[in-house]
Amino acid sequence: MSCELCDSDGGAVIWRDDLCRVVRAAVDGYPGFLRVIANRHVKEMTDLAERERLMRVVFACESALRQLYNPDKVNLASLGNVVPHLHWHVIARFADDAHFPDAIWAAARRTAAPRPPMTDDALARAIMAAL
Amino acid sequence: MSCELCDSDGGAVIWRDDLCRVVRAAVDGYPGFLRVIANRHVKEMTDLAERERLMRVVFACESALRQLYNPDKVNLASLGNVVPHLHWHVIARFADDAHFPDAIWAAARRTAAPRPPMTDDALARAIMAAL
Repeated sequence: MSCELCDSDGGAVIWRDDLCRVVRAAVDGYPGFLRVIANRHVKEMTDLAERERLMRVVFACESALRQLYNPDKVNLASLGNVVPHLHWHVIARFADDAHFPDAIWAAARRTAAPRPPMTDDALARAIMAAL
Repeated sequence: MSCELCDSDGGAVIWRDDLCRVVRAAVDGYPGFLRVIANRHVKEMTDLAERERLMRVVFACESALRQLYNPDKVNLASLGNVVPHLHWHVIARFADDAHFPDAIWAAARRTAAPRPPMTDDALARAIMAAL
């Protein structure tokens, strides 16, 4: 069966190693939204022997977003109901974003306040510093 | 400031240790929905020195739900926008649940197919076996 996260990177890659890659999610109103995507096709975290190592990358993304954006909250989620290839959403949340305090998958409450995105390079450096 | 997850367990506790507790989420249509709640008031995973240990409990809950419910997918999420006291949602998802394949925070698509809940005791045993 075809899988879009096997067939493509799933976004602009800003960091990668042999286990996973970090891509920037192109979601309007969410400049601080990263995805950590397993390179192998694995469905659940408990299918992945290297789950601690993958979480260290997720937490490095959280650290990078906190450092660069100073968000009101960070949201972490591994859902995969649509694309069952292990990936984490790491999202800087702000009280004036489109959905706060709801999850970003709920209906929008407002138009997001504009917030300039950091460069891929700044994000990559912050992730590497946190690893 | 008052915090409901400092002031109460946040649900029926089915397992606990000095770091965290596992409670059963009382959400209609989701019999396989656990929450892993840090005992200390901590906001983000990167504020918690014991984050690997906490994730081992999250993954034990995932294993328990997979064993007992055989779900189509497991969803893991640490959001905390409403209650910024670190807690994880660990949710057994099924193609015929109310929101699939959307996140449970989206609008419902249908009435959930009935699915009997496992007992707290069966869940506790499966969590302990997975730890």
